[in-house]
Amino acid sequence: MMTTKKIDVQQAVMAEDLGYAERIRQGLGVKGVLMVNLIGSPGSGKTTLLEKTLGRDGLRAAVIEGDVATDRDAQRIEATGTPTIQINTDGGCHLEAHWVNDTLDELPLDELDIVFVENVGNLVCPAEFDIGEDHKVAISSVPEGPDKPMKYPLLFTEASAVILTKTDLLPHVPFDQDLYWDDVIKLNPRAERFGLSCLSGDGMERWPDLLNRWLREKRKG
Amino acid sequence: MMTTKKIDVQQAVMAEDLGYAERIRQGLGVKGVLMVNLIGSPGSGKTTLLEKTLGRDGLRAAVIEGDVATDRDAQRIEATGTPTIQINTDGGCHLEAHWVNDTLDELPLDELDIVFVENVGNLVCPAEFDIGEDHKVAISSVPEGPDKPMKYPLLFTEASAVILTKTDLLPHVPFDQDLYWDDVIKLNPRAERFGLSCLSGDGMERWPDLLNRWLREKRKG
Repeated sequence: MMTTKKIDVQQAVMAEDLGYAERIRQGLGVKGVLMVNLIGSPGSGKTTLLEKTLGRDGLRAAVIEGDVATDRDAQRIEATGTPTIQINTDGGCHLEAHWVNDTLDELPLDELDIVFVENVGNLVCPAEFDIGEDHKVAISSVPEGPDKPMKYPLLFTEASAVILTKTDLLPHVPFDQDLYWDDVIKLNPRAERFGLSCLSGDGMERWPDLLNRWLREKRKG
Repeated sequence: MMTTKKIDVQQAVMAEDLGYAERIRQGLGVKGVLMVNLIGSPGSGKTTLLEKTLGRDGLRAAVIEGDVATDRDAQRIEATGTPTIQINTDGGCHLEAHWVNDTLDELPLDELDIVFVENVGNLVCPAEFDIGEDHKVAISSVPEGPDKPMKYPLLFTEASAVILTKTDLLPHVPFDQDLYWDDVIKLNPRAERFGLSCLSGDGMERWPDLLNRWLREKRKG
């Protein structure tokens, strides 16, 4: 299942949007469905991480794909057999809660454990918007360089988890891992943090473990 | 020389801003100084490209560095001996013309050929803003993947040149070069386009050649 929506970004009203975020959180809370908001630069590996996650470890998931244009990511996700909704922002640089709210009705929430939202590829704007998620996850990749946390601090401060992707490229690019993780810890000492490579598979087990723990915590709470 | 400015992004008024863009273009036109606006994702290699460009080929340059936070990029540029002004947007996702206008008075324009502006790392928002530049340059890197032009079309449509950076990583990541360049040509057949690697030096000569041609064209016109 894949649906494409065109959004008029001018319609957004930020205060009203916070109401939608709360409505989403309450609605998913009643159903015990976790919502995870993946945020990172273009090409940081958000879609690939989802491709490698979906259909494994017994988690029943759906994906809301946010993109400026095209449904290329949604097509990749749909190919895994996962219910997928594409939101095209038509130039807009982030997702807002009322758009997410509009899409949730189209998902089989009673049959789901997790709704992943892949936000628009952007390390700045999406971090400012509450879309009703339980957790924001910061995705940043080795080739982007180790200085990103301090240069784009809001996301790394807000995130429940920081994932460093494409660690298979560490032998091929200059990347000071100590600097990177020290900066992450300075900004957000409580965030979960780990590196992984979707290409080699290294470190991948940490991610479904974390999702399962978040789901258990949500359903206990 | 390095100056850091803190900007209240709420002060921006977009219509007024276009007036500033025109004022910048006229002022630099009189002096025959070229302004080049570098736009790309976080970690696409904008600062490294500047580091490798500055102080070479006889071009007298200054740099205006736009960042959400920190002066790390400005420090790197200043180390090349280039006049550098840091604009911190304090969370803002792009540069605007009135901020650029405020900084130009602090540069020795009579002694310059080029002002480079390194915009905030963001493939979406900076493309929407005219800051008085002669040319926008789209910087995208191999590890971001070949699907970026179609997924973020505005920048690639607006750019005078599209530079694919980090080509040294081509052996280590899946990247369909035909798809990438075909999409660029579909969006913007007239853009200059080439790949390069600041690490290996491959293809680097194309960039100063292009800058020198743009400068000659500006001074003739």
